[in-house]
Amino acid sequence: MTGEFTSLPDVEPSRLVIERTQNPKKPPPPSGLVFGHTFTDHMLTIPWNASSGWGAPKIQPYGPLSLEPSATVFHYAQALFEGLKAYRDQNGKVTLFRPDMNMKRMNSSAKRIALPTFNGDHVIELIQELIRLDKHWIPAQPGYSLYIRPTLIGSQPALGIAPPNEALLFVICSPVGPYYPQGFKPVALYGTTEYTRASAGGIGAYKLGANYAPGVVAQKEAAKLGYVQNLWLHGPQHHITEVGTMNAFAVFKRSDGATELVTPPLDGIILPGVTRDSVLALARDHASGKAKVPELPENLVVSERSMTMKEVKDAAANGSLLEFFGTGTAAVISPVDRIGYLGEDVHIPTGPDGMGPVSRPIWKQLVGIQMGSVAHPWSVVVTE
Amino acid sequence: MTGEFTSLPDVEPSRLVIERTQNPKKPPPPSGLVFGHTFTDHMLTIPWNASSGWGAPKIQPYGPLSLEPSATVFHYAQALFEGLKAYRDQNGKVTLFRPDMNMKRMNSSAKRIALPTFNGDHVIELIQELIRLDKHWIPAQPGYSLYIRPTLIGSQPALGIAPPNEALLFVICSPVGPYYPQGFKPVALYGTTEYTRASAGGIGAYKLGANYAPGVVAQKEAAKLGYVQNLWLHGPQHHITEVGTMNAFAVFKRSDGATELVTPPLDGIILPGVTRDSVLALARDHASGKAKVPELPENLVVSERSMTMKEVKDAAANGSLLEFFGTGTAAVISPVDRIGYLGEDVHIPTGPDGMGPVSRPIWKQLVGIQMGSVAHPWSVVVTE
Repeated sequence: MTGEFTSLPDVEPSRLVIERTQNPKKPPPPSGLVFGHTFTDHMLTIPWNASSGWGAPKIQPYGPLSLEPSATVFHYAQALFEGLKAYRDQNGKVTLFRPDMNMKRMNSSAKRIALPTFNGDHVIELIQELIRLDKHWIPAQPGYSLYIRPTLIGSQPALGIAPPNEALLFVICSPVGPYYPQGFKPVALYGTTEYTRASAGGIGAYKLGANYAPGVVAQKEAAKLGYVQNLWLHGPQHHITEVGTMNAFAVFKRSDGATELVTPPLDGIILPGVTRDSVLALARDHASGKAKVPELPENLVVSERSMTMKEVKDAAANGSLLEFFGTGTAAVISPVDRIGYLGEDVHIPTGPDGMGPVSRPIWKQLVGIQMGSVAHPWSVVVTE
Repeated sequence: MTGEFTSLPDVEPSRLVIERTQNPKKPPPPSGLVFGHTFTDHMLTIPWNASSGWGAPKIQPYGPLSLEPSATVFHYAQALFEGLKAYRDQNGKVTLFRPDMNMKRMNSSAKRIALPTFNGDHVIELIQELIRLDKHWIPAQPGYSLYIRPTLIGSQPALGIAPPNEALLFVICSPVGPYYPQGFKPVALYGTTEYTRASAGGIGAYKLGANYAPGVVAQKEAAKLGYVQNLWLHGPQHHITEVGTMNAFAVFKRSDGATELVTPPLDGIILPGVTRDSVLALARDHASGKAKVPELPENLVVSERSMTMKEVKDAAANGSLLEFFGTGTAAVISPVDRIGYLGEDVHIPTGPDGMGPVSRPIWKQLVGIQMGSVAHPWSVVVTE
């Protein structure tokens, strides 16, 4: 993972400058936290320009950015981001979950819109330094964590549409509560056919700002119809692609007795989610016998293949649909109990705890890894 | 044209506050201007928030914007813009060209990503006020103008993906030179099949930032292959959609002797360009006999219909392709002499002046209207 502009300086942790806040804030009571509204005392910024490469990283007091009104991010959406969490595990350690995956995807996103790439390991080191400084912001209560938001924007003050010659990478941190404070609550989705999230040759496989603003109206319209989120259906056959801003999974009982876990393949219109990848990896290792996940069905088949809304609807009707869920960093797993589709509701079974036979054990395993009760190389220690 | 949040205050010119710069800059010599790199002394800002609507407009010294690092524009591309020009016409008047069209489109763009709409006539009034203050920045030389960039961004400091509850409309102005300082220079295009600009259910019909960052790599790759811009081809039949960031036009000689001017229809993936609309309107009025355009062919047919790259290639081969050009605010008309397509070059005729039988008279008429030699209601006087 090295920058594209190899002759220019890459991100260099040894150049880090730390300016501590003179006015540390008191972290608010965790119970009142709203996702992404509260930020810690410090932020990390790393400037880049085309002639001198990546500049000295700086950890400084959290505060406003000053940008020329002509900065390209305001005009041409030269913006991309990542989302990952720092957990205070049950042993008191602070850990990150697979941060290398976020850095890999961030570089892939940067390349797609001609923003500079960078050494991901070095940025992880700097993020760890930032977390260590603000680690008292991670609530100790179970289910709470510190949401880390690395962001990269084009900041050149000029209106020409071109690769920017100035950019800014910054990282901010927000303490967040559990997605389901009262236990799992399955959500109702609206099958969106009026809008598309992504298409071949587009940007759906990258975590670019440009994928998000256009989805807000689809979400708004779903909410107006009484659904919590929208389900992105693609093409004339209404292929299932994503659930709002999460990856989509379905579980079918096959006629041969196998339990099939299905998610759409990474064909260019699907975001390569870190949780998606983790669910697939755990399920595959279980299926192959390499590493069993407790309580997960024995005869499990893991498929990255396309599925249509018709397949899901028919399976729901004949009883072979076992569950449907979304995956993402915020919720980990988000079970679905209903999909509004072309004027009718497709009902999806959920267990008394809101989950299903595959999502329940996978969720337990994932959260166990994140919280330190299950040892796994995916969990990276920030501080003991 | 009134805002969507009708119970809240709309943009109100009578609330305008003007803070003049204490350090006026000296406009640089026009000959050295690079598009979008130089800005005038002042800018217009109008804040909005969901609880109190549009706030007091302010004309203030041009300078940096201060935004929280959590502002939605940095993360989710809640950004849209317009581009229009103020001309110093041959009578010394300062005029705008069809600003109502820009405001209409800006509101349409805002709606598409759940940003607030506004009274477009009122924003035009405020833009005129800004231009009057900085009118000495409009170079007097023919072909020069003041490029006006209205922009609207989501500025709520929160990471939830939702309609923002804070936004900022701002307008900056940049003196610009002629697109073709040495007369028309036809450009070579690369027919892009690797990337798509837009698709059904997407955002191609809106002037959103999110349409631009993803196009930079396509342009970069075209340049690497020796082409000036890329031609966006869509779908398995390679339908012609747009030329870089311009609308696309072709002219065919039909077997019945008519001259056919063709541009793709506004089917959801085409930006409704102001120059596109003006070219069509002038050509239609000429064809119907309502208002003749000097030198434009008599037997003219104007078609908004889809066309494939195969049609253009075949017409070039059999001599029935008369010309191909892009239209946009920056260049007005940009003639094309070559299209790289699947490994070979399609050659397109151009006249000795670089233009063709339809683009030449239309361009003269449009520039005549913009520069005041042809009286037309499209030209709006800012100051005598």
